[in-house]
Amino acid sequence: MHRLAVSLILATAAQVAAAAPDPKLVEDLVAANRILAHEGLLDGWGHVSVRIPGTPNRYLMARNVPAELVEARDILEYDLDSKPVGGGNDALYTERYIHGEVYRARPDVNAVVHTHAPPLIPFGVTGVALKPMYHRAAFVAFGIPVFEIRDTAGMTDMLIRDAKLGRALAGSLADKPAVLMRGHGATVTAPSLPRVVGRTVFLSLNATLQMEAARLGGEPKYLDIEEAKLIEAREGYGLARAWEVWKRKAAAK
Amino acid sequence: MHRLAVSLILATAAQVAAAAPDPKLVEDLVAANRILAHEGLLDGWGHVSVRIPGTPNRYLMARNVPAELVEARDILEYDLDSKPVGGGNDALYTERYIHGEVYRARPDVNAVVHTHAPPLIPFGVTGVALKPMYHRAAFVAFGIPVFEIRDTAGMTDMLIRDAKLGRALAGSLADKPAVLMRGHGATVTAPSLPRVVGRTVFLSLNATLQMEAARLGGEPKYLDIEEAKLIEAREGYGLARAWEVWKRKAAAK
Amino acid sequence: MHRLAVSLILATAAQVAAAAPDPKLVEDLVAANRILAHEGLLDGWGHVSVRIPGTPNRYLMARNVPAELVEARDILEYDLDSKPVGGGNDALYTERYIHGEVYRARPDVNAVVHTHAPPLIPFGVTGVALKPMYHRAAFVAFGIPVFEIRDTAGMTDMLIRDAKLGRALAGSLADKPAVLMRGHGATVTAPSLPRVVGRTVFLSLNATLQMEAARLGGEPKYLDIEEAKLIEAREGYGLARAWEVWKRKAAAK
Amino acid sequence: MHRLAVSLILATAAQVAAAAPDPKLVEDLVAANRILAHEGLLDGWGHVSVRIPGTPNRYLMARNVPAELVEARDILEYDLDSKPVGGGNDALYTERYIHGEVYRARPDVNAVVHTHAPPLIPFGVTGVALKPMYHRAAFVAFGIPVFEIRDTAGMTDMLIRDAKLGRALAGSLADKPAVLMRGHGATVTAPSLPRVVGRTVFLSLNATLQMEAARLGGEPKYLDIEEAKLIEAREGYGLARAWEVWKRKAAAK
Repeated sequence: MHRLAVSLILATAAQVAAAAPDPKLVEDLVAANRILAHEGLLDGWGHVSVRIPGTPNRYLMARNVPAELVEARDILEYDLDSKPVGGGNDALYTERYIHGEVYRARPDVNAVVHTHAPPLIPFGVTGVALKPMYHRAAFVAFGIPVFEIRDTAGMTDMLIRDAKLGRALAGSLADKPAVLMRGHGATVTAPSLPRVVGRTVFLSLNATLQMEAARLGGEPKYLDIEEAKLIEAREGYGLARAWEVWKRKAAAK
Repeated sequence: MHRLAVSLILATAAQVAAAAPDPKLVEDLVAANRILAHEGLLDGWGHVSVRIPGTPNRYLMARNVPAELVEARDILEYDLDSKPVGGGNDALYTERYIHGEVYRARPDVNAVVHTHAPPLIPFGVTGVALKPMYHRAAFVAFGIPVFEIRDTAGMTDMLIRDAKLGRALAGSLADKPAVLMRGHGATVTAPSLPRVVGRTVFLSLNATLQMEAARLGGEPKYLDIEEAKLIEAREGYGLARAWEVWKRKAAAK
Repeated sequence: MHRLAVSLILATAAQVAAAAPDPKLVEDLVAANRILAHEGLLDGWGHVSVRIPGTPNRYLMARNVPAELVEARDILEYDLDSKPVGGGNDALYTERYIHGEVYRARPDVNAVVHTHAPPLIPFGVTGVALKPMYHRAAFVAFGIPVFEIRDTAGMTDMLIRDAKLGRALAGSLADKPAVLMRGHGATVTAPSLPRVVGRTVFLSLNATLQMEAARLGGEPKYLDIEEAKLIEAREGYGLARAWEVWKRKAAAK
Repeated sequence: MHRLAVSLILATAAQVAAAAPDPKLVEDLVAANRILAHEGLLDGWGHVSVRIPGTPNRYLMARNVPAELVEARDILEYDLDSKPVGGGNDALYTERYIHGEVYRARPDVNAVVHTHAPPLIPFGVTGVALKPMYHRAAFVAFGIPVFEIRDTAGMTDMLIRDAKLGRALAGSLADKPAVLMRGHGATVTAPSLPRVVGRTVFLSLNATLQMEAARLGGEPKYLDIEEAKLIEAREGYGLARAWEVWKRKAAAK
């Protein structure tokens, strides 16, 4: 009674306002899971979600399944309290509140990734600011804050276990494209699934390249914020090409 | 007369107290070998073992076979002197004493890995202390000592060739989750097979991330020991998801 | 009416001077796309082209397809204004002007790659000069300039969107084998397809090795320009062997 | 008339003293080529050879074929002047003199690898001495000199094109296990094929680990030469396990 297909039947038959999700959207969400796993950005942990177009208080995300193994039948519909619509007793991701609270705070965001991408960890730990190394990661110019969970909850097991912590994280994120989480990982946002996948890939690559540049010395000349705005204004030009390649690689794996 | 199946028949038929090992445990041990090989943490050298539940003076480990090629029929039962139960004349790992002596000294340990994981080598050589970079490697906060074989045996070929060296290593390990071995590798312990695999994966990744952070500069803010305790208290939450992915990747290899 | 086969028929039947491209050349261009994708030097972005022998004002390049997926039927013929010969309404690479303007400015160049190879980014950003680390990258001794798009066009989205920017890039390249593009990538040239692939591979590897050497310290002894000239004079000796392996790996992918 | 099979028939039928090479030796040499290619230590360039047991003035090596593609039928027999026995007109590796001259100068050497392994290049360029990081690379303790081709021949294209350069390289190697070649690569020797493959793998890994340690700081405690002697005296213990895994991986590729 708790899988997507069933919950949709219930939803249609009953009082729930959610429209049936576009199968194309489910397919893209499955692809996003596979791509991010294939690129080493989601492993046994981490997750990706997408807001349902036209139903801003609902989002889709897998039940408690590792990204690499997610299939269409694992996709559930959640409300902004991060409760599965229609209930059910699937095991869920502990940190699902990240998604609900970011969607609540940020109407411009339609897709969210929570990742433990290794190259981002040293930046969260050292507090050295990420800088935009090149045009694919231009959005870094808008600023990537660091979330310190101790400020909200003192000593914890580092996880975003409830709505309160989710709200605190969304507060650190503010109007930025992503937020690092000290000693934990990062949360990345975008207006669409392909863009959140691209941003996660290139945020991680930017971190690696910035670490490389740090040992070269010289006088770094990062992207100017005006350059970043012009790049972002074109909203992911060429991304369709990359998306096609990523999907193919992930499928061939 | 020396393979597991046969030794078990003998054991059952005769005086040996060992219960027949759970086939699921053998399967998990084979999986642990494959996973660690796939992740580049065991190559032609190194090994993983598991204590037999309910029979604390026995453990399972492969005969002298590289981790990547281990199959169920290669698994032998050993006593805490690291002698195969029921004898036999299989070639054995030279350094099997690591396992027997750690199990003897540490009743809380149920699984042991001996690895040459490359990212750990620079820490053993330089004596720079490993620090907990993020929650997946929280146990690093408990301290990772370095074993110096010269203190026990002067100039050697670096191998743990007998019970005496095994005891010395266990002495350096003390009550910690892992011990680096200068110029050699590391020995990692945990209460279960999935956790020892996870600890080996994340100890190695933590080493890589700490080296990256070292070149970034900034003011590192490692996990606090209280955070580490809270994380460890949940005993590997989410590890079942990672274990599933690791097994699948190793099998698909 | 716009694919290569058709445009060639039109070309043959009508007034266009272009000879039918050698199918071997098309095959090699497809292979170059696949090799560079396989080596991680072209992803969803970037492209490779080849000038048509005997028709110096024409070059071959794919339509707007990611390198990894390029097939013979995607190859179009372009003039030096970077317009497809015979028109057509295929989507095209935005930055095709890189190719046309380099071929116009450099009669000695017969193959061009535009890449976002990650190891090159830190050099473009920091302005630290690339130095020739070893004989496979000897051409680095001739000097690898950095193109600053701000000098020509101020704040932009960093892309070479028109012939004017293409000419500015070719001006920075001057008579050198390659030019880095600050915050963007690089453009690499050579007298042939196998050599431009080899140069892209080894320019990127040279960048990695130079970053490694930077942290070792010591007194670097780079290739002398006389050594580079003697190496280059043999024009890619052994390259046929490497080309064979690269093609095979890319095909087996 | 020039392939191994034929040359052996001629050899048997005629005056040449060479015994027919053991098919097992040819198979191992093919495996060594595949393993080193698979491990990224030989690409389109570089080669591996083995001296024929009982015929110290002969060695086996491929004709001019990239390591990854070498098959048994590509293996030729050479004399110490690096001429194929029985003549023939196969294309040959330009730098075959490395092998002949090392075998001539070093009766204790039975296998030779010439590699461009990337991690070794920064050490040859900077002159920073390789140090033995761990027991698998213990032989580094015996010293790894650097060959400077300018001392013998001034400005060159860096290649060992003749016997004179081969002798100069063997002179730099002296009685050491390997020699770096500035701006070029390295030549590695050992008493057997499995050991020369192991030494090439671990020399390269040692270089990587030493570069990592360089950025960690601390007080490095390398292997003592006495430790290295004790390790080497056991002549590759465990190597048979690694060889089995390497072969399998290379075959499955």
